[in-house]
Amino acid sequence: MIPSPSPSVRREHDLLGDRDVPAEAYWGVHTLRARENFAITGVPISVYPLLIDALAGVKEAAALANEELGLLPAEKARAIVAACREIRGGALHEEFVVDVVQGGAGTSTNMNANEVVANRALELMGREKGDYAALHPNEDVNLGQSTNDVYPTAIRIAAIGAGRELLRAMAVLQDAFAEKAVEFGGVVKMGRTQLQDAVPMTLGQEFSTYAVMLEEDRGRLAEAIELIHEINLGATAIGTGLNAAPGYAETARRHLAGLTGLPLVTSANLVEATQDCGAFVQLSGVLKRIAVKLSKTCNDLRLLSSGPRAGFGEINLPPVQAGSSIMPGKVNPVIPEVVNQVAFEVIGNDMTITMAAEGGQLQLNAFEPVIFHALSKSMTSLRAACLTLAERCVTGITANVETLRASVENSIGLATALNPHLGYTAATAIAKEALATGRSVAELTLEKGLLPPDRLAELLTTEYLTGTTGGVLEV
Amino acid sequence: MIPSPSPSVRREHDLLGDRDVPAEAYWGVHTLRARENFAITGVPISVYPLLIDALAGVKEAAALANEELGLLPAEKARAIVAACREIRGGALHEEFVVDVVQGGAGTSTNMNANEVVANRALELMGREKGDYAALHPNEDVNLGQSTNDVYPTAIRIAAIGAGRELLRAMAVLQDAFAEKAVEFGGVVKMGRTQLQDAVPMTLGQEFSTYAVMLEEDRGRLAEAIELIHEINLGATAIGTGLNAAPGYAETARRHLAGLTGLPLVTSANLVEATQDCGAFVQLSGVLKRIAVKLSKTCNDLRLLSSGPRAGFGEINLPPVQAGSSIMPGKVNPVIPEVVNQVAFEVIGNDMTITMAAEGGQLQLNAFEPVIFHALSKSMTSLRAACLTLAERCVTGITANVETLRASVENSIGLATALNPHLGYTAATAIAKEALATGRSVAELTLEKGLLPPDRLAELLTTEYLTGTTGGVLEV
Amino acid sequence: MIPSPSPSVRREHDLLGDRDVPAEAYWGVHTLRARENFAITGVPISVYPLLIDALAGVKEAAALANEELGLLPAEKARAIVAACREIRGGALHEEFVVDVVQGGAGTSTNMNANEVVANRALELMGREKGDYAALHPNEDVNLGQSTNDVYPTAIRIAAIGAGRELLRAMAVLQDAFAEKAVEFGGVVKMGRTQLQDAVPMTLGQEFSTYAVMLEEDRGRLAEAIELIHEINLGATAIGTGLNAAPGYAETARRHLAGLTGLPLVTSANLVEATQDCGAFVQLSGVLKRIAVKLSKTCNDLRLLSSGPRAGFGEINLPPVQAGSSIMPGKVNPVIPEVVNQVAFEVIGNDMTITMAAEGGQLQLNAFEPVIFHALSKSMTSLRAACLTLAERCVTGITANVETLRASVENSIGLATALNPHLGYTAATAIAKEALATGRSVAELTLEKGLLPPDRLAELLTTEYLTGTTGGVLEV
Amino acid sequence: MIPSPSPSVRREHDLLGDRDVPAEAYWGVHTLRARENFAITGVPISVYPLLIDALAGVKEAAALANEELGLLPAEKARAIVAACREIRGGALHEEFVVDVVQGGAGTSTNMNANEVVANRALELMGREKGDYAALHPNEDVNLGQSTNDVYPTAIRIAAIGAGRELLRAMAVLQDAFAEKAVEFGGVVKMGRTQLQDAVPMTLGQEFSTYAVMLEEDRGRLAEAIELIHEINLGATAIGTGLNAAPGYAETARRHLAGLTGLPLVTSANLVEATQDCGAFVQLSGVLKRIAVKLSKTCNDLRLLSSGPRAGFGEINLPPVQAGSSIMPGKVNPVIPEVVNQVAFEVIGNDMTITMAAEGGQLQLNAFEPVIFHALSKSMTSLRAACLTLAERCVTGITANVETLRASVENSIGLATALNPHLGYTAATAIAKEALATGRSVAELTLEKGLLPPDRLAELLTTEYLTGTTGGVLEV
Repeated sequence: MIPSPSPSVRREHDLLGDRDVPAEAYWGVHTLRARENFAITGVPISVYPLLIDALAGVKEAAALANEELGLLPAEKARAIVAACREIRGGALHEEFVVDVVQGGAGTSTNMNANEVVANRALELMGREKGDYAALHPNEDVNLGQSTNDVYPTAIRIAAIGAGRELLRAMAVLQDAFAEKAVEFGGVVKMGRTQLQDAVPMTLGQEFSTYAVMLEEDRGRLAEAIELIHEINLGATAIGTGLNAAPGYAETARRHLAGLTGLPLVTSANLVEATQDCGAFVQLSGVLKRIAVKLSKTCNDLRLLSSGPRAGFGEINLPPVQAGSSIMPGKVNPVIPEVVNQVAFEVIGNDMTITMAAEGGQLQLNAFEPVIFHALSKSMTSLRAACLTLAERCVTGITANVETLRASVENSIGLATALNPHLGYTAATAIAKEALATGRSVAELTLEKGLLPPDRLAELLTTEYLTGTTGGVLEV
Repeated sequence: MIPSPSPSVRREHDLLGDRDVPAEAYWGVHTLRARENFAITGVPISVYPLLIDALAGVKEAAALANEELGLLPAEKARAIVAACREIRGGALHEEFVVDVVQGGAGTSTNMNANEVVANRALELMGREKGDYAALHPNEDVNLGQSTNDVYPTAIRIAAIGAGRELLRAMAVLQDAFAEKAVEFGGVVKMGRTQLQDAVPMTLGQEFSTYAVMLEEDRGRLAEAIELIHEINLGATAIGTGLNAAPGYAETARRHLAGLTGLPLVTSANLVEATQDCGAFVQLSGVLKRIAVKLSKTCNDLRLLSSGPRAGFGEINLPPVQAGSSIMPGKVNPVIPEVVNQVAFEVIGNDMTITMAAEGGQLQLNAFEPVIFHALSKSMTSLRAACLTLAERCVTGITANVETLRASVENSIGLATALNPHLGYTAATAIAKEALATGRSVAELTLEKGLLPPDRLAELLTTEYLTGTTGGVLEV
Repeated sequence: MIPSPSPSVRREHDLLGDRDVPAEAYWGVHTLRARENFAITGVPISVYPLLIDALAGVKEAAALANEELGLLPAEKARAIVAACREIRGGALHEEFVVDVVQGGAGTSTNMNANEVVANRALELMGREKGDYAALHPNEDVNLGQSTNDVYPTAIRIAAIGAGRELLRAMAVLQDAFAEKAVEFGGVVKMGRTQLQDAVPMTLGQEFSTYAVMLEEDRGRLAEAIELIHEINLGATAIGTGLNAAPGYAETARRHLAGLTGLPLVTSANLVEATQDCGAFVQLSGVLKRIAVKLSKTCNDLRLLSSGPRAGFGEINLPPVQAGSSIMPGKVNPVIPEVVNQVAFEVIGNDMTITMAAEGGQLQLNAFEPVIFHALSKSMTSLRAACLTLAERCVTGITANVETLRASVENSIGLATALNPHLGYTAATAIAKEALATGRSVAELTLEKGLLPPDRLAELLTTEYLTGTTGGVLEV
Repeated sequence: MIPSPSPSVRREHDLLGDRDVPAEAYWGVHTLRARENFAITGVPISVYPLLIDALAGVKEAAALANEELGLLPAEKARAIVAACREIRGGALHEEFVVDVVQGGAGTSTNMNANEVVANRALELMGREKGDYAALHPNEDVNLGQSTNDVYPTAIRIAAIGAGRELLRAMAVLQDAFAEKAVEFGGVVKMGRTQLQDAVPMTLGQEFSTYAVMLEEDRGRLAEAIELIHEINLGATAIGTGLNAAPGYAETARRHLAGLTGLPLVTSANLVEATQDCGAFVQLSGVLKRIAVKLSKTCNDLRLLSSGPRAGFGEINLPPVQAGSSIMPGKVNPVIPEVVNQVAFEVIGNDMTITMAAEGGQLQLNAFEPVIFHALSKSMTSLRAACLTLAERCVTGITANVETLRASVENSIGLATALNPHLGYTAATAIAKEALATGRSVAELTLEKGLLPPDRLAELLTTEYLTGTTGGVLEV
């Protein structure tokens, strides 16, 4: 230990010289320099607890592996493991202070973790923080590791956690839509293509599509999460495994799988795995897909609830706040609107990830910190958006059943149903006349004697029109 | 000239060896190799006539400058100039055959131009194609030039031309909206915010915004086009002007400005200008802005014309084709839809340009061909979209005046107009009751004696409500 | 048939009135109007032969299903089927003339197909083109169909075809890299992280990563292609199956699977399937992933071959054309450069697809034409890029073995290999001294007596350093 | 005031009913609901102090205007103004608690401001918080205003402030590059195009380009900032000015210009101005341009400093932290790397803004909150990136003068300089031989007697080669 100039600081040393860090800090000189170098967003990595837990998990697994392989004395290993478990239990997260946007491929994050684990382990060993001769952040905590395998492994584990939380939130939203689909199963309405009245359907069918989309998206997300279970721990600097002991990669993976409960596998080609960000691009692409469809769904909800009088007025979203500071009684679709905005951010994040992934060079992608940052923001915001949409909007939606029914009975689109029976040309003529005169398709068909009344009635049942079980439309 | 193995070909030579090109081809060995190397899209650069004209213009200006500076004999200069003028008059465009997407920073395009100009000039000199001892594509046509100043200069001139055509098309569309704004000046309707009924306005005000947006966008586009009048001709390879004679840059610029009629200026720092794509990024950013607003405008048109019965039904777009292969009488907003799609392409092109610009390295951006390709597609498609929208849609739009007026009289939003007179709390109560009971805001206000009838009538004039000159709403 | 005003035209009729089409044209009035309405890019859909084949396949399958279900007389069915087979055999593609960018959700493309099939079928029945009383484009060729199920089905089949071609091209490129990985298996070099010398590896390891990336990407692409085997044929307008006979969806699917040889399945929820573009977004996301990694690979190739003297100079790309119009002897990495540009276009196309997918509304996405256009461009350009890169670049790459070996022997990075044996602090001191003095790490280590010579030699074998089988470095 | 159920809360009322808010909170029921509705990012709007100041400025200007126009009693006006000045002085920012991502077009932000101002004004009037009968958040603080004019005006003012800070930071970075350009003015080096050795230049020329790019970008940014000085205050809900008194717009603008010191102007067409986000798209496009060029610059710095031994090794970036947890002595270009990542985020933010702007509908864009959020992030991060790059990297860069000089003397690229004197064909032959034999271009030229020694020496001066004043190269 370097003698301290005052009791409130301790002096540490690195490649560039000596620096004082606050005596009570668990982080050390490497973290200090990183904070000074990367004063970009002001947001520390502790904003991602899943990342801090994952870093501690990797450090713990490495210590266990090193002990098992006889490379780390039991006393040191025990102290490191104990420190990591405290961190994984929620302790010391506030000591992870480096900026979420940082140069150096995650080195500063890894160094921050090494220092915090080392200093806490030193305390547990009954020593003072900074007594690195007894336990060294790099030589012991980081033993057999490199930022280039620790960091990619940790961000994968954190992303798996965030992805699973998102999956659960999507399931909640899916259920909310599915319940509405059942509730609205008998509500007949006009379907629309290109915003023009098309043919009848039920509101239940409309809401079922939102549930089905989410189910499919969950499937794709689960597959993308599967891909990031492949880790490169043991690769060390560039994937050749230099300085990692024989058996280390497999032993560390086993411990890490055990303590996280995740079916992690080691990549077959560690050189490739160390430089490749393909799985993150894929995951972000799926998040973008989810965003695109959520946004489309919210566009629909806003459109269907437009009005109250000069709009579609088909459904009502539950009011959750006053809509205007100037227009009394106005209630706006603020929940779908916030989901739209989250979607736009996710699409923007995907662009950031694309640029960062493309910018990787040779044996490493130096831009993984911003990739992780963007991925995390996308997943946490999407999760919040799904839960908010489910709980503050979808479950409270009601239908204006009479308006919907009237729109079908009044519709030119019924001509389509008569198309196979009248022919495209005659049906077109009826449609044009109905539009010009304001009269109904059914009325004109009967008047012209084109179909007998009972046959016409048969063709205008909800069941026939929508392909579902339902009642008869009044004609 | 290398002896030809057969009358149908001529043999040419380059760094890599000998190759036969078709005897009738004006292009030569460099173009031949480029075609073989870049079989990517199958689309030749001749698809952009403005580019071919610009290349010929640069070659002509260079020849004139070289002659003036005593570097090129008059006979050669005259032949080159004559060949270039033919090309600028529309001849030989089909000889510009290299792919629009190509490696090499435009070298293949420049070589293609050198070869075509040289061979046509040779013919004009009474010699055979390929007789490069008499006039050489590189040593004469390309004298004092480099791809790295010729190509950036030529694509700027071509982009100026395409930009000006777009400006004209935008003016046509702006005028179409402005005419409708006048036509609909007295048509009162409900304005909407967040798709919810807000407060009254006129349909003329609504259409005037589309005209104003276009006017502003034209201003921005004109500024962006201004920026690309700055050229680097005379920079040669990297901007140091190596091998360009003293006075060449200024002399060539003067001739080029003269023959194009454009107020071109030479960049102050040619090293910077040779590597910089900032002006293209800026121009594409403005095109994206135009696309975003055109797309928003088309979204509005599709929304306002939704129906005919189960939609907003406020305006009618002119029918331009049958809308459905199955639904008789259906007419869809196909013109706005195609404009939306053009907008999405422009936004995608902007991303391509962003990536390509970011990828430049050191003294050159090797990716200018795809930048030009993307810019050109954006400008030509936007131009077609503006004209199509103006001529096939906007000029034929009609208003459903009665529907619009009824929506105002029936509107909860009138409560906003009473807000300053009743207070936010009382106005909110009226609004809620109107919504719950289906009764009108005016009726409830009178019934509760909150305002005397004549004062209420005053507040409900179109003039008062919309800030324009108009009639009185019936209440 | 409407009487023709002249022998060179025939008069046809639609919703909007009568129009004359050229007598020899197989397309009719709907196609005519579409051409007039959508003069956007000037590129006809026939530029995508896979789409034309797919459209004919869908029409053929529908006719077979309708015949089997007793809805279409055998004579008509036979004529339609025969016409479709001719088209699938390559005939009449030039009659598919509507613009690749079009409004109307593909209606114009479907109508173009209906008209061409009908008119060719009429000829095969011994009748004249335009004799729609005998066989009608809409009532017969389009029987039981809607654009909204025909078009999504056809573009999926076309995209499967393009995707499979891309898979094959990627395999060619993968093989090229894999062969180089073997060839360069014994060539030791410095690995780099963040463009700084890191630790040794073999050039074979470096090239193997490119092969592995492609293999993984092929896996992801195959999965994404799998997803678009799910079709909505039988959905008709909005997925309710209105006007499609019972059994039609399944029968048509069976015929379509049979004649395309593809394991197509019908979506479980046809309402959802008709409006959903998720599978296209996913596919495009995977194409973007491929583009990102190809671009990164080409960045590497350009970097490794930089020079010839003032660059990395590690490998040589085969010269394929002269690199400069001004710099003699210059050879540029034009093939990787063109691949980079294709990648940038694919990333831009993904943005277009994202916007278009997000813009879908209610029961349909009207923007599928631009989605298909962008997807097709991405797949065909990527395919060309992979083949070009394999054949014109990768297979001809050579290594500068001596330069590479010298860079390892001279490297500071060897200090890393000694790190576990000397400790991080001592190894850092050696590294700093080597850097300051220009002396080698090995020399300094021996001089300071930090390791015995034989132990040092052991640590500096290629085998130990790179984790591969190799020789001994000279120290 | 509604009676409170306990001393620790006060009860407030809105459209949806009664709610308790903490007694000490300056925000009220509208803010409470917004917090509950928008639990998306957890980041409150107070993270943007410029926005809080701008909101207070707008409220102050509105109060002054309303007082001047006789609409607001002097006592209320004085209290509101005093409260706003406190906030603009830094007080109460922590009371601005709604999420940066929110639905409702900024209504929640405006309501939060109205409530905080009202409650602080009430205190200053000697009353209790919540005593809205004495001073009402909506009826007094928001008098004559709507979210739809307040919010766009406030975010413009905040964006102007952030833009100006960015301009200053860019100037610092520009100066840093310009100083290096002078310092390196006499250092000759090889210029490169397409990563291949091209022709000589000075390192000063290279660094001058970075300064020039920044100067141009500052010009574009200043223009884009100019555009957002156009405000819509007085537009109220949709631009018709409903409920704003005659003269209000101009009076409020005058006060706002006075208290901010900004030359604000009122839009000519307020309906257009209220819905239009074009100026934000433009501003973001310029930020993207800046990001693209900063990223390119950092790519160059990383490339030029690659090594230390197996790279370009032309310049040295100052070491700012240890580069690796495993590789002793490794120093990485972490500062340029973090700037690259900021650039990727800015490009992603631009995409978010593009989507949000395109999604506006009819008379309003509901997505302005995410537009402001993304713009603010881009500007604050770019500012931090510019200062960090200037102070922690550029100012400490040193050149490896000897390496650079040697690369020129050894270069094939010198053949280009001889091109006009030897002809392209002879120069190409020399270049090829130099490359094959490893001999220098000068040596071969002399040996072959192609130029007399003194003429050759003349052509190889730095001055001649680089177009600058410099010394003579040794040959």
